Amino acid sequence: MMRVIIGVVGAGECRRQWCEWAEEVGKGIARLGAVLVCGGLGGVMEAAARGARNEGGITVGILPGSRKNSANPFIEIPIATNMGHARNAIIAQSADGLIAVGGGFGTLSEIALALKMGKPVVALDPPVKIPGVIEARYPAEAVELVFEIIKKGGDTV
Amino acid sequence: MMRVIIGVVGAGECRRQWCEWAEEVGKGIARLGAVLVCGGLGGVMEAAARGARNEGGITVGILPGSRKNSANPFIEIPIATNMGHARNAIIAQSADGLIAVGGGFGTLSEIALALKMGKPVVALDPPVKIPGVIEARYPAEAVELVFEIIKKGGDTV
Amino acid sequence: MMRVIIGVVGAGECRRQWCEWAEEVGKGIARLGAVLVCGGLGGVMEAAARGARNEGGITVGILPGSRKNSANPFIEIPIATNMGHARNAIIAQSADGLIAVGGGFGTLSEIALALKMGKPVVALDPPVKIPGVIEARYPAEAVELVFEIIKKGGDTV
Amino acid sequence: MMRVIIGVVGAGECRRQWCEWAEEVGKGIARLGAVLVCGGLGGVMEAAARGARNEGGITVGILPGSRKNSANPFIEIPIATNMGHARNAIIAQSADGLIAVGGGFGTLSEIALALKMGKPVVALDPPVKIPGVIEARYPAEAVELVFEIIKKGGDTV
Repeated sequence: MMRVIIGVVGAGECRRQWCEWAEEVGKGIARLGAVLVCGGLGGVMEAAARGARNEGGITVGILPGSRKNSANPFIEIPIATNMGHARNAIIAQSADGLIAVGGGFGTLSEIALALKMGKPVVALDPPVKIPGVIEARYPAEAVELVFEIIKKGGDTV
Repeated sequence: MMRVIIGVVGAGECRRQWCEWAEEVGKGIARLGAVLVCGGLGGVMEAAARGARNEGGITVGILPGSRKNSANPFIEIPIATNMGHARNAIIAQSADGLIAVGGGFGTLSEIALALKMGKPVVALDPPVKIPGVIEARYPAEAVELVFEIIKKGGDTV
Repeated sequence: MMRVIIGVVGAGECRRQWCEWAEEVGKGIARLGAVLVCGGLGGVMEAAARGARNEGGITVGILPGSRKNSANPFIEIPIATNMGHARNAIIAQSADGLIAVGGGFGTLSEIALALKMGKPVVALDPPVKIPGVIEARYPAEAVELVFEIIKKGGDTV
Repeated sequence: MMRVIIGVVGAGECRRQWCEWAEEVGKGIARLGAVLVCGGLGGVMEAAARGARNEGGITVGILPGSRKNSANPFIEIPIATNMGHARNAIIAQSADGLIAVGGGFGTLSEIALALKMGKPVVALDPPVKIPGVIEARYPAEAVELVFEIIKKGGDTV
C-alpha cells in the first residue's frame, strides 16, 4: 500500500526553536505511519529526520549533490539528485503535503512550488507571509493540520 | 563574447498592466544587448518576449514541457526541458539577474530561487513582499536597476 | 546506518524471461538488506519491485511523471520527479550500482549514465554490447556481482 | 519563426579527427540557419560551437554546472542548468535531431535518450553500434542526413 509522504522543509542551519519544532514534527509524522521526505542536509532537515527515525519512521533525503554521504545521519534513503536547487521541486512534487519550519529563501521556493502544484502547506514561523499557507502554532498542530487536509483530499496521488 | 542574460518572470495569464510592463521590460533588455530568458509560455512571458523581439533581441524560452511548439511565437530559441516546475530553477540559474512582473506562486518560486542563488531580483508589483527584492515603479527603472547591479558585480558568471 | 541502494533498470513492457529474472533480482537485493531503486513503472521495474517487496525489502520508484499513483503497486516510496527521462540520471546517481535486465533505449541511457558516473553496472541480456558492462548469466549471479564490486569499493557514497 | 535546433554531442576531450569533424558539422549547421545546441564544454562541444560561430550561427550551451563562465568561448547563450548529467536529457529533448561525433559514455547516454524520444540521431564514429543510429562517413553527410530526416518529419516540434 502506498504511504502518505510528508515533506519537511526549512533552513540548513537552524535556530534552537526551529530545530526543536522540527524534531517534534518528524516524530509526529512517523507516529502516523507516513514517510518523511526532506532535503537531506542539516538544520531543520536533520532535526526532522532525527525525530522520525527515533519513532521508527522511514526518512528520505532528496539531496542537491551527487553523493549519498552528504546526507545527515538520520536519512535512511538518500536520493542523490545532483540537481542543486531544482531538487526543491522534487520534494514538493513527491510530498502529499509540506510542513515548513522557519527557513529562508530556499524554504520559500519550496513553499511556493508546493502551492503552485496545489499541495497543502502548513508553516511554523514562515519566512514571509504568503496567502494560501496555513500557519500552525506548535508542531503537533502542524502535523494534525496537514494530515487532515490530505485526508479530506481523498486518495493521496 | 558572452552575453548578459536577464530572466523575466511572471504569470502565464496576465492583467493588462502586467503585460504592458512586461513588453516594455523586454524592449529595454533587447536595447541593452542582453539575451532575454523566460519560461517561454503566455502572459508576462509572451509579452516580454514580444517586446524583446520587436527590438531585435534574442529570446530564449525554458519550457516546462517536452515540445518546442508549446513556446509562444516570440521565442526564438525554445529549450524543452520536460522538467515541469523544476525548470524555474534553470531560469534563475542561467540569468545574471531577474525582473519579476506581477505573478503568483510560480513567480514567487523563481524569485526565491534566484535570491537563494545570490542573483539580483527587481520586481514590479511583486506577489508578496520579500526582503532582498528590489521594487521598481516602472519598467525602465526595473531594467536600469538590474543592469546596474549586474555591472557592479563585475564579470557576469 | 545508510543502506546500500541498488538500481534495477529495464523495459516498461517486458518479455517473460526478463520479468522472471527481474523478480529474482528484486528478491536477491531485498535478502541482502539493500534498498531497491527503479523507475517505478511497469515491466521489469514492477517485477523487480514485486520480488523485493515479497522478501520484505524497501522499494523506491523514481517516477518520470508528477503523480505518485503512476507507480506500480509494489513501490513503497514513490518519488514523483516530473522530470521525464531526466529521472534516469537520478536513478543512476542515487544507486551504488545498477542491474540491467534486458531493455531498450531508456535502459541504455541509464547504463551509460551510470558508467559515466563510475558506478558498477551488471547486465542480464543487455540491449547492446557496451565495454564496461559486466554481463551475468542468471539473476543470482547479477546480484552477487554487483554487491561484490560495491563492497570492494569500500564505503558506499 | 521558430528555428531548427541541432544538438551536437561528443566527448569533452577530443581526438584530432573528432574535433575537425565537429568543427565542420558546426559550420554546416550554421550555414543552414539552424541553432546549434551542445553541452557547452570543451572537446567536440567546443569545436562544433567554434565552427558554428565562425559562420555566424547561434550557439547554445546546456551546461552541467551552475556557472555561465564554465562555457567554452564559442557559446553565445549559456544555459547553466546545475543538473549534472541530467542536462543530457535537456539537450536531447530540445534538439530536433542529434549529430554525435565520437564520444564515450556521456555521448552514449545522449544518443540513447534522443532515440527514446524518437529524435533522429546521425553519428560519425559512434562509441558503440546501436540500432536506430544512422552512421555518416563525413561531416557534410551527417548534417545533410539529419536535416533531411527533420524536414521529412514536417514541422519541427
